[in-house]
Amino acid sequence: MFRASEMLSAHPRQPELDAAVLARCIEECFACAQACTSCADACLGESNVQELVKCIRLNEDCKTACLATGEMLSRQTGADWGVLRAQLEACRQACATCAAECEKHAGHMEHCRVCADACRSCERACEELLSAIAA
Amino acid sequence: MFRASEMLSAHPRQPELDAAVLARCIEECFACAQACTSCADACLGESNVQELVKCIRLNEDCKTACLATGEMLSRQTGADWGVLRAQLEACRQACATCAAECEKHAGHMEHCRVCADACRSCERACEELLSAIAA
Amino acid sequence: MFRASEMLSAHPRQPELDAAVLARCIEECFACAQACTSCADACLGESNVQELVKCIRLNEDCKTACLATGEMLSRQTGADWGVLRAQLEACRQACATCAAECEKHAGHMEHCRVCADACRSCERACEELLSAIAA
Amino acid sequence: MFRASEMLSAHPRQPELDAAVLARCIEECFACAQACTSCADACLGESNVQELVKCIRLNEDCKTACLATGEMLSRQTGADWGVLRAQLEACRQACATCAAECEKHAGHMEHCRVCADACRSCERACEELLSAIAA
Repeated sequence: MFRASEMLSAHPRQPELDAAVLARCIEECFACAQACTSCADACLGESNVQELVKCIRLNEDCKTACLATGEMLSRQTGADWGVLRAQLEACRQACATCAAECEKHAGHMEHCRVCADACRSCERACEELLSAIAA
Repeated sequence: MFRASEMLSAHPRQPELDAAVLARCIEECFACAQACTSCADACLGESNVQELVKCIRLNEDCKTACLATGEMLSRQTGADWGVLRAQLEACRQACATCAAECEKHAGHMEHCRVCADACRSCERACEELLSAIAA
Repeated sequence: MFRASEMLSAHPRQPELDAAVLARCIEECFACAQACTSCADACLGESNVQELVKCIRLNEDCKTACLATGEMLSRQTGADWGVLRAQLEACRQACATCAAECEKHAGHMEHCRVCADACRSCERACEELLSAIAA
Repeated sequence: MFRASEMLSAHPRQPELDAAVLARCIEECFACAQACTSCADACLGESNVQELVKCIRLNEDCKTACLATGEMLSRQTGADWGVLRAQLEACRQACATCAAECEKHAGHMEHCRVCADACRSCERACEELLSAIAA
């Protein structure tokens, strides 16, 4: 369903770094944002919501950071890599923090297990892209 | 990469309507938002940007409406269907309007062709979900 | 702190409608989005969070709709008023629905009282702008 | 119009840092996001849009980072200060970079002058909050 690779290869200005790494990170950011929004809402629907307050909060922050990062990375014209690096770093940290919390509940709540996967996958994609930028 | 279906089936409160139709619409909204962000940026990188001003604007609005809709549909706890229906209608209209503009440039700009596809696909998904809600 | 009026009067293309009504609606949308984000989070911090699930959900949706609308209204170049009207209608409805829920708790929770005010104020600004567009 | 201070003082969990500094940063983030959205659009409406491509891009990124930061700071329940610090740092950098670009055009384009002011004001608010967190 995602067309990030197609869009990047049709772009008049080719990215200065590995387009596959970039496309993967963009897609992971949007997919993780969706999973976190859904996990926050699923936690809110659980009978023990009181115990899930921290999880909901970290889900919400991870969603916000991922959406911002996915959007910023989708732009290649006149990119400022200092700004993108800082945003990627914030996203990587939000994903790692949310994943660690969701993993605590992953054994008994499937939505936290799936969401933790999405966060870890996005965290790795951010790390890979940060390495590619540094190179 | 998307986990919208998995997240929906792991949700403590099952959606009141066809989960597959809902999951597809959520995924199309995020994928269309990504394509529109990328298309606006690709247009901005073209040498004839002056002629693409309307396309950039409609891309930006479509991205904004799609992100809002994808996020709102990802929440199933305590949903208000009147609000969701109105947001879906706004999204459907933004997609149709953006697609019509991108289609004008699709013959000579690949990013507009791919983006028009994303918009039409999301427009159809919104229509399907609107029908499912009305049923 | 807002500079929406200044920005509108410095814009190369003057809005086709009353700039003061437009500026007010833009500012109300962003201010309401902030209040709703804060109210959802305050509800999450209450000891009776279980009873506030619907309020949190409607706050989140109102925030999302308001942000999308404030952003779309901030753009005047190549505006499509059909799309804007539909988004404004979605926002008006989200504000009215969220306000009605917050008002139920306004007597004993100050954050719901302040948030209900923000929602009603934004709802009115959307109505005024919808009338201005129709004229 | 903003109610960030009122919302913070009505919150069941008081922020661990100076509430006035926090409220100011939240408000500056949303106001800067509005100014940047408007400036990108005003640039797009100028006859020399080709020369403003970098400005539009940096406006868009600054808007995205500011919205994300304003939203994340509006949440006080279960806050993770490592994540917030990283996002604030990304926002501070996006503001500084966008301001520097807008200042180049501020002499002949009023919207860039007003937007540069908004960016510098938000940059300072981020710095102040970063200092308060470190303290």
